[in-house]
Amino acid sequence: VNPFAKQSRDSVSALGEERLIVSIRRWLGTASPAAPFGIGDDCAVLPASAGAQLITVDPVIYRRHFDDQIHPRAVGAKLLKRNLSDLAAMGGTPTSAVLSLTLDRRTSLSWLEGFYRGLAECARRYQVSVVGGDIAQADGIVAASLTLLGQAGAKRVLTRTGARNGDLLYVTGNLGGSLTSGHHFRFAPRLAEGAWLASEPLVRSMMDVSDGLAKDLHALTPTGMKPALFSQQVPRRRGVDIRAALTDGEDYELVFSLAGNADREVFERSWRRRFPRTRLSCIGSFVREKEFPQNALNLDEYRGYEHLR
Amino acid sequence: VNPFAKQSRDSVSALGEERLIVSIRRWLGTASPAAPFGIGDDCAVLPASAGAQLITVDPVIYRRHFDDQIHPRAVGAKLLKRNLSDLAAMGGTPTSAVLSLTLDRRTSLSWLEGFYRGLAECARRYQVSVVGGDIAQADGIVAASLTLLGQAGAKRVLTRTGARNGDLLYVTGNLGGSLTSGHHFRFAPRLAEGAWLASEPLVRSMMDVSDGLAKDLHALTPTGMKPALFSQQVPRRRGVDIRAALTDGEDYELVFSLAGNADREVFERSWRRRFPRTRLSCIGSFVREKEFPQNALNLDEYRGYEHLR
Repeated sequence: VNPFAKQSRDSVSALGEERLIVSIRRWLGTASPAAPFGIGDDCAVLPASAGAQLITVDPVIYRRHFDDQIHPRAVGAKLLKRNLSDLAAMGGTPTSAVLSLTLDRRTSLSWLEGFYRGLAECARRYQVSVVGGDIAQADGIVAASLTLLGQAGAKRVLTRTGARNGDLLYVTGNLGGSLTSGHHFRFAPRLAEGAWLASEPLVRSMMDVSDGLAKDLHALTPTGMKPALFSQQVPRRRGVDIRAALTDGEDYELVFSLAGNADREVFERSWRRRFPRTRLSCIGSFVREKEFPQNALNLDEYRGYEHLR
Repeated sequence: VNPFAKQSRDSVSALGEERLIVSIRRWLGTASPAAPFGIGDDCAVLPASAGAQLITVDPVIYRRHFDDQIHPRAVGAKLLKRNLSDLAAMGGTPTSAVLSLTLDRRTSLSWLEGFYRGLAECARRYQVSVVGGDIAQADGIVAASLTLLGQAGAKRVLTRTGARNGDLLYVTGNLGGSLTSGHHFRFAPRLAEGAWLASEPLVRSMMDVSDGLAKDLHALTPTGMKPALFSQQVPRRRGVDIRAALTDGEDYELVFSLAGNADREVFERSWRRRFPRTRLSCIGSFVREKEFPQNALNLDEYRGYEHLR
């Protein structure tokens, strides 16, 4: 679906700002509380947080993150899910979101309705309140940026820092082929998995895989160490080779390290009991650079998605 | 200053993502705490809030909110100040911010450095931590959206709702001519004034003036009432006529209503003691539609800034 209106009466400028905001409230429905806890004042009011909070922001931009092949509902849902995946990667639970829209005045109202309804449906599923936002007008642009707030897990926030020598490396789901298979629109953010992992003391570090495992793993790797991965252990989406699995990006899976002295069998059994439908693969471990095994994958030969190139 | 690089070695794509993030941390300096409380993980961790929080979001877009005439430092500062003005309008105190950037790959590094340094300087002045963000690449776009979090005042959040018949209407500063005078870059958000007004029980409603008083006042006006303003009482910037004062927009002043039975003199004396350098003007009052005085301004003849037109 093309985001630009074919006829001017279907454009956002035909409706005008005030009526557009009324429409947006209708499209968001129960995903958007009443002012001052939602849309309609200079700021939105959020209740006091029970403990530490998490915050993250990610956009979707026309011709960059979506095109005419995609239904606007899927665009709205993806915007929220990208952010939910970042929250999952630190073991958080989502609470509220604000949306910053940049729209050409010819943006189609029906496209925008689809976008908001897709966002709202996803927000209800994951119990996110869309509390506010802003709409700016700029020629030729259809873009949305969402800031997501969440609550940190009761025990701790699981960060990218904390892996040690000998830690086992695990990844959820399957990697590669996200763009060609449509996974990048269909994926379910690993919120429940992330929250459970953050509550497991032997899980030492975690992040989500969004630019390809080969690139993202750098952020998890302590100084002087290397991830020793084994090709046959890397879970691939059907029809995907090892290069695609390591570099395609937009996997929205979790990669984490488990203490090397953990009881692997007990851990994996607990996982299967809790998440019988989420594949979990041990793909290798962190080793000292000098002890890098000859038959492990040389990740320097694989490059993930490079932004701004 | 033009945001696009004249030579490719001054572009963000020449530096690449990883080194760009290192540079951004340097440019932000002490305005950006270390991970996990700042840039560097999937989310930023925020401490638990002491009470209710406020959240708002506003962008700056090249060719829409700024052009080549403006120094990038002023653009970065304006982005934050626009949001601070929204926070001031509800009596809040800023705490932290996240930034969503959309950059053409030819964006100039020196422009971007100026932008971040201007943002950082402003963040330090108003004690805002820039805790995270995202950079997306899109052709032809240089845009930034900032989400600001703040703490609500201890006593209450002052909203746009709450004015009653007979309430006096006040406005801070001078109105009109913001774009031509440069006020829209130079203004100081009315944070201290807003916080004090929210602590005054007889102040009943408040908002900031950003689209022009004539338009913005609608949001403050209760059903069945009208604001009766008097031309000679509306504070104008030098060389500005009443139409410009009511419709130019980007004033970033506060407009609020004070209970009609308040002791005006006591209130205004308290104001002058606390804010001797901030002009305060009583511009009229809310009256029942039927009781609208003949010599009051007919605001229907003035239209403020219309978005998406």
